Amino acid sequence: MLGIQKIAHYLPDTKSWNAEKKECFDIDDDFIENKIGVQCRTVKNEDDNTSDLCVKAYHELLKKIPVAENEIECCVVVTQNPDYNIPHTSAIVHGKIGLSDNCACYDLSLGCSGYVYGLSNIIAFMQMNGMKRGLLFTADPYSKIIDMQDKNTALLFGDGATVTLISDEYEWKPVTFSFGTNGSNYRELICDDTLYMNGRAVFNFTATTVPKHIKEMMEQKHLNDADIDKYILHQGSKYIVDTIRKRLGVDAHKVPFHMFEYGNTVSSSIPMILEEELDKPENSRMVLSGFGVGLSWASAIIEKK
Amino acid sequence: MLGIQKIAHYLPDTKSWNAEKKECFDIDDDFIENKIGVQCRTVKNEDDNTSDLCVKAYHELLKKIPVAENEIECCVVVTQNPDYNIPHTSAIVHGKIGLSDNCACYDLSLGCSGYVYGLSNIIAFMQMNGMKRGLLFTADPYSKIIDMQDKNTALLFGDGATVTLISDEYEWKPVTFSFGTNGSNYRELICDDTLYMNGRAVFNFTATTVPKHIKEMMEQKHLNDADIDKYILHQGSKYIVDTIRKRLGVDAHKVPFHMFEYGNTVSSSIPMILEEELDKPENSRMVLSGFGVGLSWASAIIEKK
Repeated sequence: MLGIQKIAHYLPDTKSWNAEKKECFDIDDDFIENKIGVQCRTVKNEDDNTSDLCVKAYHELLKKIPVAENEIECCVVVTQNPDYNIPHTSAIVHGKIGLSDNCACYDLSLGCSGYVYGLSNIIAFMQMNGMKRGLLFTADPYSKIIDMQDKNTALLFGDGATVTLISDEYEWKPVTFSFGTNGSNYRELICDDTLYMNGRAVFNFTATTVPKHIKEMMEQKHLNDADIDKYILHQGSKYIVDTIRKRLGVDAHKVPFHMFEYGNTVSSSIPMILEEELDKPENSRMVLSGFGVGLSWASAIIEKK
Repeated sequence: MLGIQKIAHYLPDTKSWNAEKKECFDIDDDFIENKIGVQCRTVKNEDDNTSDLCVKAYHELLKKIPVAENEIECCVVVTQNPDYNIPHTSAIVHGKIGLSDNCACYDLSLGCSGYVYGLSNIIAFMQMNGMKRGLLFTADPYSKIIDMQDKNTALLFGDGATVTLISDEYEWKPVTFSFGTNGSNYRELICDDTLYMNGRAVFNFTATTVPKHIKEMMEQKHLNDADIDKYILHQGSKYIVDTIRKRLGVDAHKVPFHMFEYGNTVSSSIPMILEEELDKPENSRMVLSGFGVGLSWASAIIEKK
């Protein structure tokens, strides 16, 4: 059996402040605080590519726990902003970290549902192939593709990366996963040259689909709200997190909100919150849920060992 | 238990003939027939994107076997030439085929090792999540990125796509998989704007790494050449297929060579051969091996049910 042993993250020091863009976009403090919930966005160094963000997250992991590079048997990067399309970014990270020749590497192309998918994917792949230690990276620096004149996206997305150490010496294990796709509406969130998001359509899809999806998953496992200590939702915006929470009928203290000081970090948003919540003694069972690009959604229930 | 039930492929009708490029690239018939082993390359219609090639392969599958779209629970596309980077191509295929909302979709970014990785990945993911029917697509149309003045790549790569129906009503099942990565040499095969390949370096890596890798995998399963009916190798070039075969010490009739009439179709090369070999009564156990971009390699042993 494999699960999550430890999570670490990297956030760039450079910040872009939305307060400085009030005039330009005709927005006020209420919009910043309660609608998007992003005071400032983290922006990567221009020289840093996606693989560099992963390596920086890995160095943060090493500060928390020793990792023997030659024991890592699997390295997965979840991204839709790779260094190049050819080769996969996981191979570049493999080279930069200095992993062994026997390590399997692949990228998963998914957006905001990517961490939940990635968790299921790497654990399943490693278990089937008898692997014991692996690294699951998320890094999707949207600063590479955002049109800074587009109000729908320019105030929202922050750069960052996370790494999750998957191991047979795990602290938390997955109990169940559930996935969904609505591919016919893929054009609502798309990047040809720069990112386009139909905020209203994505909001409506999320508000309609995700709470129902989470409830169904819990019902299938005969769990109700009293059995869940935290709901770790993808941080799409303050408004969407609040909306899902209300539709689930869940107390605010059970739904951490984190993005105010860095923005929507796409597939990194869930593991950035999870990193803190894993160690809190009051948590023994949590729901995770990611949703967005695709359109795609994925939820999981995880339990303390 | 899940395995391979059926495979289908799509190859474009348009062909580009290497005989017409002899003068331009200063090559002769021996080079065409024995070095690269590509008489002509298939080239996709300009209007067709990667997802369209997948859909065309899917329509070929429907000619061979009925598929209930609402029973497909997982749809994976292996590609490094997606329609867009955002969203994943599997979501677009999902929409075009009309799969159900309950279907999990993700792309795997891998090159010539992608089919073997993909086979292990989708089977592991589906088994862990209790899914019974899935589609594994490969489609990597290099015509999108090839510099037609570059002798190293302009004569070699063909467009195509395959789809593998993964099911609990399988005909062939995987016995073992083995994976490897040498990320520090990723620059030998890379696409920034157009494809660059250091043919010599990639050849040397393959000739050194792959035969040893296959032998080790067989030894671990206590199998020798007498136990293997066919070796399905990625069709990198005639010269590399011949070299691996000789270093394995295997008879030519056990190593099908297919690419003469369509070229190197990247992650589609193995399933295009496998599609034919699955149904031959003389085959009961086969080795698969893919290698290339990353640098990456992956091998498997599969057995008839």
